[in-house]
Amino acid sequence: MERIIIDMDEVMADTMGGMFAWYKEHFSLPLDYEKMKGSWIPGIPEEHKTKVREQLYSVGFFRRLPVMKDCVEVMEELNKQYEVFIVSAATEFPNSLKDKLEWLEEHFPFLTWRQLVLCGDKRMIAGDYMIDDHVRNLVHFKGKPYLYSTILNKAETGYERLNNWREIADRFL
Amino acid sequence: MERIIIDMDEVMADTMGGMFAWYKEHFSLPLDYEKMKGSWIPGIPEEHKTKVREQLYSVGFFRRLPVMKDCVEVMEELNKQYEVFIVSAATEFPNSLKDKLEWLEEHFPFLTWRQLVLCGDKRMIAGDYMIDDHVRNLVHFKGKPYLYSTILNKAETGYERLNNWREIADRFL
Repeated sequence: MERIIIDMDEVMADTMGGMFAWYKEHFSLPLDYEKMKGSWIPGIPEEHKTKVREQLYSVGFFRRLPVMKDCVEVMEELNKQYEVFIVSAATEFPNSLKDKLEWLEEHFPFLTWRQLVLCGDKRMIAGDYMIDDHVRNLVHFKGKPYLYSTILNKAETGYERLNNWREIADRFL
Repeated sequence: MERIIIDMDEVMADTMGGMFAWYKEHFSLPLDYEKMKGSWIPGIPEEHKTKVREQLYSVGFFRRLPVMKDCVEVMEELNKQYEVFIVSAATEFPNSLKDKLEWLEEHFPFLTWRQLVLCGDKRMIAGDYMIDDHVRNLVHFKGKPYLYSTILNKAETGYERLNNWREIADRFL
């Protein structure tokens, strides 16, 4: 069975969506998407950056994130045909660890704790395919890398893209 | 730089030592080491098994574990000469995740969150060397595996052994 490595934030979980919803609720302000190249942070007004960072470190933020459209159905099929590992750069955020495990168990009951990897750096991860929204994770990967599109990586070239979970299904199923 | 993958429980952390100390304090009973081949569980009296399992799932158990002798000093040198990743099978125990990160940060301040990997299965981990006390983790590894000796793996043959952190220093430094 071929092994597929799948990122969590911005690929399975709509992390920016969750943050923007929280932001809008608290500050009633639009965010400047044009400044968000590679990172959210430059698009957030200076005076709100600390509050936004606090959200990322809080208990429960990752636990409540929405799931990306079509992700559950496609993942269930992938899990039958591939050896699937969900690999998330999470150790920077100590309170995200248990949240991410519980989030996965809630939304993807057909996956198990054996398939979750919580790390900081992904350079030691081996597999046949990797789907990730960050070039910094794909660049070390020895298998075939796929860049999952977000507004933050629009300018990246040099990687084959997957734009949504229907495209993941078309490619892998 | 060569990459070395190092296990946490029973290699860096004296997990059995921590459990046995707790057991002795609560039950004032000796444990049957002879029955512990590959797992602690058969050596624990039937009526105490539930309590012992509860410890593994509790908040704080992994946070308080003692560090193995000479581990800190040898790790500090390894970290200068190798790309070190600490890889722990931890996702079975949701409350161990943050505990393990904080334990590492307390005792090994020269390591960072980027070097910790919390997973369930280790088959997707790649590196040049792996030091682990479980054959089930070593068996999939493509680099050079080393079995770290514990009372649970005494019967294993077929792997080069490292019996303590002085031997790790002699081999790698």
